[in-house]
Amino acid sequence: MESIVQKRLTAEFIGTFWLTFGGCGSAILAAAFPGLGIGFVGVALAFGLTVLTMAYAVGGICGGHFNPAVTIGLWAGRRVAAGDVLPYIAAQVAGAIAAAAALYLIANGQPGFTVGGFAANGYGPLSPGLFDLKAALLAELIATFFFVFIIMRVTAPGAAPGFAPIAIGLALTLIHLVLIPVTNTSVNPARSTGPAVFAGAEYLSQLWVFWLAPIVGGVLGALAARTLGEQKPA
Amino acid sequence: MESIVQKRLTAEFIGTFWLTFGGCGSAILAAAFPGLGIGFVGVALAFGLTVLTMAYAVGGICGGHFNPAVTIGLWAGRRVAAGDVLPYIAAQVAGAIAAAAALYLIANGQPGFTVGGFAANGYGPLSPGLFDLKAALLAELIATFFFVFIIMRVTAPGAAPGFAPIAIGLALTLIHLVLIPVTNTSVNPARSTGPAVFAGAEYLSQLWVFWLAPIVGGVLGALAARTLGEQKPA
Amino acid sequence: MESIVQKRLTAEFIGTFWLTFGGCGSAILAAAFPGLGIGFVGVALAFGLTVLTMAYAVGGICGGHFNPAVTIGLWAGRRVAAGDVLPYIAAQVAGAIAAAAALYLIANGQPGFTVGGFAANGYGPLSPGLFDLKAALLAELIATFFFVFIIMRVTAPGAAPGFAPIAIGLALTLIHLVLIPVTNTSVNPARSTGPAVFAGAEYLSQLWVFWLAPIVGGVLGALAARTLGEQKPA
Amino acid sequence: MESIVQKRLTAEFIGTFWLTFGGCGSAILAAAFPGLGIGFVGVALAFGLTVLTMAYAVGGICGGHFNPAVTIGLWAGRRVAAGDVLPYIAAQVAGAIAAAAALYLIANGQPGFTVGGFAANGYGPLSPGLFDLKAALLAELIATFFFVFIIMRVTAPGAAPGFAPIAIGLALTLIHLVLIPVTNTSVNPARSTGPAVFAGAEYLSQLWVFWLAPIVGGVLGALAARTLGEQKPA
Repeated sequence: MESIVQKRLTAEFIGTFWLTFGGCGSAILAAAFPGLGIGFVGVALAFGLTVLTMAYAVGGICGGHFNPAVTIGLWAGRRVAAGDVLPYIAAQVAGAIAAAAALYLIANGQPGFTVGGFAANGYGPLSPGLFDLKAALLAELIATFFFVFIIMRVTAPGAAPGFAPIAIGLALTLIHLVLIPVTNTSVNPARSTGPAVFAGAEYLSQLWVFWLAPIVGGVLGALAARTLGEQKPA
Repeated sequence: MESIVQKRLTAEFIGTFWLTFGGCGSAILAAAFPGLGIGFVGVALAFGLTVLTMAYAVGGICGGHFNPAVTIGLWAGRRVAAGDVLPYIAAQVAGAIAAAAALYLIANGQPGFTVGGFAANGYGPLSPGLFDLKAALLAELIATFFFVFIIMRVTAPGAAPGFAPIAIGLALTLIHLVLIPVTNTSVNPARSTGPAVFAGAEYLSQLWVFWLAPIVGGVLGALAARTLGEQKPA
Repeated sequence: MESIVQKRLTAEFIGTFWLTFGGCGSAILAAAFPGLGIGFVGVALAFGLTVLTMAYAVGGICGGHFNPAVTIGLWAGRRVAAGDVLPYIAAQVAGAIAAAAALYLIANGQPGFTVGGFAANGYGPLSPGLFDLKAALLAELIATFFFVFIIMRVTAPGAAPGFAPIAIGLALTLIHLVLIPVTNTSVNPARSTGPAVFAGAEYLSQLWVFWLAPIVGGVLGALAARTLGEQKPA
Repeated sequence: MESIVQKRLTAEFIGTFWLTFGGCGSAILAAAFPGLGIGFVGVALAFGLTVLTMAYAVGGICGGHFNPAVTIGLWAGRRVAAGDVLPYIAAQVAGAIAAAAALYLIANGQPGFTVGGFAANGYGPLSPGLFDLKAALLAELIATFFFVFIIMRVTAPGAAPGFAPIAIGLALTLIHLVLIPVTNTSVNPARSTGPAVFAGAEYLSQLWVFWLAPIVGGVLGALAARTLGEQKPA
């Protein structure tokens, strides 16, 4: 029998594996399939549904962060104990790297496979639309601000029970609908780290952007959410 | 500590920022990305999800209008106090303009950026499908009629608790699925104003259409909804 | 003050207007927009969301049928009184024709407008994929069987409260994802009648198919649903 | 009047018919329609919505498996009695074959019809993206692990009531968004069997993969879910 701490970290590992496997996997395997590919709209849906499904599955165990920017943001918003922050982040990053490894093993089963960007995040020449560093920082900061703001609010006392995973998951879909061309969309340092390990040195050298901007944005979003006080059901 | 009035106006500002940033941002940044772009279906989804997510996040604070036509419609439907109307509209327009400014700062980080229509609304030569003024007025009036009708009904006494943000957000998605080719879809004077400030004089000269038609439609929709009385859960 | 009967028929009129305006409108105005059009996937989503949103809005007033095959099916399933059937159908057909007229007024505001098929249903040379009469009958019968089966079950005693509009609306989306190429998807004689009035004699001569097959399918679906008895929440 | 056992098996038959008719039907009839086809994103949505709608419709009768890997997984997770396993699987396979037959009768109503792959699953030359056997096994095993893990968790004691069909259905959509290019996505031996009967000997000779991998993955997913214990609402 696992201890409660082990259960929570296992749940964060599983959830972040699923987020990376489903979200980045849809981008790597299915986005650009000739004629029938799911495009950015399918990738956006996939990312959101990873969080929607896992928040229902294990949200009651671990809170369902699957994202270091969320964990740090919720700590700033006084929802997470300081002692949980580093273990959660370790479990999340491990889950994301494991998922990227699993995706690698599947993707290289296709004839003519090359690793390419492997759904890693980037700016400048590594941005899908070649957006510059300033645009990348601003986009990631704003998007994570709102992502954590929404998470804080829909799980606040008085929020409609049971609906939080829908709001949070679809917020992530929305963010991807807007920002894939800019940075391939991070708002999640763990999701950024997993694929970057396989995409190589160029992507790893830009990884700091996708730790810094989401964490700053997430902390600010949590603080803003706190100022609004209790929620009443809409 | 903020006063209750400040909290409500802050929430409307944040929500309308999100609506404009997410909805117009998806159109500006991601709709026409070569080969993988989200198209009008992705933009429609994005607009709806901005309202779905923010209605869960701050609906319990401010009601979650994010739209002057909704505020005026709900005032006509006796759900909003007269004294709230102008402050709400001011907060909404400010949020939309701020969001358009943020989008401008991100979008101009792409090589070869030109502002273009910047997701502003228009008719005639400024309509995506070149629809004329009569079509634009009729489309916006009918769509806002139904949008405010649905909002009034799903928040009426006896409506199923917790589901209103889903119905309202997805109603906005539906409206965009139909009307983007006609006017780029407004049904929201604040959302129309933000991008028009950046798109320039031609778009600003047509802005009256996207204040007039949504407000008239919204008022009529609210009055129609009132005639049906109380709701029972479906 | 309207009587209860008037309210219910008004609600069915409004709901079927919305179904036809939103569903057929998305097909007519937005499906084939060059490069950015919503395609059949967007049309499928639009049809489903018309029912999802209106079932939340007026389901508590009138039951939210918006469809003669549903009204007759639910009568066969002992959920609707015999005296309601004809007035409901009249309100539904009137709503669908009014919506088609409104769409006509919007659509003809585009330069070069021709009415074309106007999202009417058809088989043989009038089927999007040229499917024959046998395929059309079978497809419409099976789809309406399941549509009314699902409606009966998710509104049965013991079903999870509040979720029926989601299940019913998304069932309609699903049906459109499968069958638009076959018949343009009816499963709803009112939705078929509205556009056919504008599409002309050829389409009107095939209209019997889209009354016959959905009604037979709906009745059989309701009877099948009754044999399964009460529902417990999933 | 049917016995309770008959009702449950009828419900599984109907549900698996719907899953195969809707999911495979969308692939066969609508995915590749010239210019307007729904692509893999529409097929992914269709598969998920079959389960979402039927889980609401008959989940309270039979549990809403529609999938031998789910039934066996839930047996391993101590949610299903051993005596139910074989009858459930028989009903599921019968439903899937009946649905494939119905699809055949509709599809052959199109001029120039050839059966082709008929949405069957495959690897190597029968994989949409020509992925090899190792990739197919790994993809199906991981995806079914998570699918059954999610099912176990969202139906565990303490899970948010009423939301399970949303989480489970959209998990299936997500899985299809990622894996259609690899194997055409099974995670369901019954869904694989129905179309393979019509697609012919080559596909039947690969069918063991889509029984073996989903069942192993499902059992492991159920066991993993059990280790996490009770759920609390997110």
